[in-house]
Amino acid sequence: MPIVNIQYIDSITDHQKRQVIEQVTEVMVKVLNKKPESTYIVLQQIETENWGVNGQTVSDRRNNN
Amino acid sequence: MPIVNIQYIDSITDHQKRQVIEQVTEVMVKVLNKKPESTYIVLQQIETENWGVNGQTVSDRRNNN
Amino acid sequence: MPIVNIQYIDSITDHQKRQVIEQVTEVMVKVLNKKPESTYIVLQQIETENWGVNGQTVSDRRNNN
Amino acid sequence: MPIVNIQYIDSITDHQKRQVIEQVTEVMVKVLNKKPESTYIVLQQIETENWGVNGQTVSDRRNNN
Amino acid sequence: MPIVNIQYIDSITDHQKRQVIEQVTEVMVKVLNKKPESTYIVLQQIETENWGVNGQTVSDRRNNN
Amino acid sequence: MPIVNIQYIDSITDHQKRQVIEQVTEVMVKVLNKKPESTYIVLQQIETENWGVNGQTVSDRRNNN
Repeated sequence: MPIVNIQYIDSITDHQKRQVIEQVTEVMVKVLNKKPESTYIVLQQIETENWGVNGQTVSDRRNNN
Repeated sequence: MPIVNIQYIDSITDHQKRQVIEQVTEVMVKVLNKKPESTYIVLQQIETENWGVNGQTVSDRRNNN
Repeated sequence: MPIVNIQYIDSITDHQKRQVIEQVTEVMVKVLNKKPESTYIVLQQIETENWGVNGQTVSDRRNNN
Repeated sequence: MPIVNIQYIDSITDHQKRQVIEQVTEVMVKVLNKKPESTYIVLQQIETENWGVNGQTVSDRRNNN
Repeated sequence: MPIVNIQYIDSITDHQKRQVIEQVTEVMVKVLNKKPESTYIVLQQIETENWGVNGQTVSDRRNNN
Repeated sequence: MPIVNIQYIDSITDHQKRQVIEQVTEVMVKVLNKKPESTYIVLQQIETENWGVNGQTVSDRRNNN
C-alpha cells in the first residue's frame, strides 16, 4: 500500500524509469514487507527553471557555473 | 479549506474533469461541511511510463498483456 | 490507479472518513472508470495553526473573529 | 532542509520564478534559520482546466464571468 | 536533487526507516546518478483509518476480514 | 489560488509559523499577483527520523556528528 512520489530534474530514459520503479518497489517489498502489486511509484520530472536551491533556479546555477 | 490532489493515468475529457471537480467538491460540502468556494481540487495526469505498480511501469504492464 | 490526497482542517469522525472514502472512490469509478480496488484515498488532517490563508493561520483568523 | 512545493495556475515568467525562489528561500533562512543550500523550492503550474474551486474548473469560472 | 515522498501504513521500526532511506538513496545514486547529499527522502506514516482502498478504510477492511 | 506545501524538520514556534505564512503569502501577492485570501499555505513538520539525506536519517546524522 505504499505510495512513493519521486520528483527529480533532468530527463531520464525509459530504461532508467523501469529500473527506479523495479528497485524502489523491491525496497518496499524486502524492507517493509509490502506487496508489489499494491505499491505505487509516481515519477515527476521538474524543469530546472522550476526547481530552486540556494535561492536560485537550477538552470541559473548551471549557467553561472 | 480542503485541498484535494488527484493523480491519475490516462487522459480524461474536459467533461470528466468538470464532473470529478463538481462531485468531489460535493462530497467535501455534504460530508465534511466545507464551503465549496474554499475547496481546491487539483488534477494531475501522470504518463503511464511514469507510474509504477507491481515493480513495472504501467505502459510495460499493458504492452506485456 | 488514481491516488487522491485530501488535506483538511478540523478533525472529522471515523464515520465521515468512511463516507469520504466511499463517495470519492465512487466518483473515480463512475466518472473515470477506475477500479475501486486500485483507487487510493489518503486523508491528512492539518492543525489550524499549520494552515495559512489570507496571510494568517486559520487559528488566528478564528480567534480574531 | 525544507521542501517547498508551490502549485499555481497561469504561467509566470522566468523572472517571476527567480523572485519566488529567491524570496521564499529568504523566508526559510530568516524566519526558520534554514540553510539556503539545503532549501528546495519546487514550482508546479497547473492548467486552469485541471484546477477546481467552488465545484467548477477555473477555466469554466473565467468563461462564465 | 531528487525528493522522494513515501506514504505508507503500519508503523515501521527505526531500523527499517534507516534501510529504506539508505536503499532508496542508493537507487537514486546508482540509477539516476544523483548525489546522495542532495537526495531527500521523506517518510509519512498514514493511520489505517485515514487510508482508503476499494472504497473502504484499511482499518475497516482488516476488521471485516 | 496558489497552494504552498512546506515540509520541514525541527519544531517551530507559533510565532514563526505566523511569520512564514505572512511572508510567503506576501511573495505570492507581490511577485505573482495572487489574492491573499485564495493563497493556501500548509506547514508539515517531519520528524528527524523520518527525513533522509545522504542516505541517512537526519537524527542519525546528528547523533554521529
